[in-house]
Amino acid sequence: MRLSELSKRSGVSTATIKYYLREGLLPPGERITATQADYDEEHLRRLRLVRALVQVGRVPVATAREVLAAVEDESSDQLSRLGTAVGALPHGPTTTGDDAATERAGRTAEEVQRRLGWRIVPGNPAHRMLISSLATLIRLGYPCEVDHLLPYGRAAAGIAEHELALIGEFEAPTTQLEAAVALTVLYEPVLLALRRLAQAEEAGRRFGANRGAGADPAADAEGEG
Amino acid sequence: MRLSELSKRSGVSTATIKYYLREGLLPPGERITATQADYDEEHLRRLRLVRALVQVGRVPVATAREVLAAVEDESSDQLSRLGTAVGALPHGPTTTGDDAATERAGRTAEEVQRRLGWRIVPGNPAHRMLISSLATLIRLGYPCEVDHLLPYGRAAAGIAEHELALIGEFEAPTTQLEAAVALTVLYEPVLLALRRLAQAEEAGRRFGANRGAGADPAADAEGEG
Repeated sequence: MRLSELSKRSGVSTATIKYYLREGLLPPGERITATQADYDEEHLRRLRLVRALVQVGRVPVATAREVLAAVEDESSDQLSRLGTAVGALPHGPTTTGDDAATERAGRTAEEVQRRLGWRIVPGNPAHRMLISSLATLIRLGYPCEVDHLLPYGRAAAGIAEHELALIGEFEAPTTQLEAAVALTVLYEPVLLALRRLAQAEEAGRRFGANRGAGADPAADAEGEG
Repeated sequence: MRLSELSKRSGVSTATIKYYLREGLLPPGERITATQADYDEEHLRRLRLVRALVQVGRVPVATAREVLAAVEDESSDQLSRLGTAVGALPHGPTTTGDDAATERAGRTAEEVQRRLGWRIVPGNPAHRMLISSLATLIRLGYPCEVDHLLPYGRAAAGIAEHELALIGEFEAPTTQLEAAVALTVLYEPVLLALRRLAQAEEAGRRFGANRGAGADPAADAEGEG
């Protein structure tokens, strides 16, 4: 397809596509004439991934390039490619000091993962992100006990199982990796929105007793759709 | 306690505390002399909440003031105060157009909540955040089916039930609300970090078969701690 069709099908302006091409985030199309190139379905797929990273994940262009290189690196096995690609995504504040809060957060993070039966990989950026966010809880004096954290971990494990099953449905290894990276980024706001909605629902159940007296919450779930 | 002790116990510098006082994020202490004031445990608790909002949640000062006003508004019932406070928190990009993707995202968001037995509140910022993030998935051509979204919703419901139980352990209504707001903000990075760790764990199980042949993942969970 021509640049204009790639733009139409992806919803990304031709100017932005040209910018991604210049920055090496998209492989060049096949030259047809001196001024025209041809693009295929792979370009479209790649363009969507770049969009997910840059627009939704607010990943800097240099980082996006790193993520894409890991996805494409066929010299490496699937698991390492995924680890490198997701590891290159932004992880929020991961500043860890060597104060008492960070030390306690580190012990808590390891204990949580041990109790969940997970491997502990100290260099993993997500591991550092967990320690950093637990250290903040500790510094501010909010609850941060292992028993309180386990339900979050179990919820995350359930989601991960579901996600990896979905990713397994994509055919080629590279397509699976692209989907894994894109869904990691794109489902973060979905999960956070659902958590807030679930909180509101649960708060309504607990604090809204006056209003809901006699009402059966299950009734809302009825009806055919 | 004096300003210096409030600073020491909260880990927040006296200059920053003075700034929060000037901005009305902290109520003034009780004047003792022309230059000294006395602060109590309530100041400390409030200071921690402000810190959670401003430092971790990156909430602008004006927004933080709005959140705190809702928490304190004793003329309103607990549920409305919580709704207003959490509703005032940032919700990521909630730009919704009136294109086909937004329309389909809106239908999907309602169907997901209906299937989960949740009340649908169109004005809720989290509802708009959900629609906006689903519309992005749709625009980019990634999976966004109701059946795929339900496991995220169920995980969120489990977490919310656990969170509200924890919040119920705080004594006074205002303290409960403060904790609810702080934990909403502070546990977002915890949840996202755990999701990435769970993904890595699950990916290792699926893609890392070569390395783990014969290894029993349950073995990692053994041992007393």
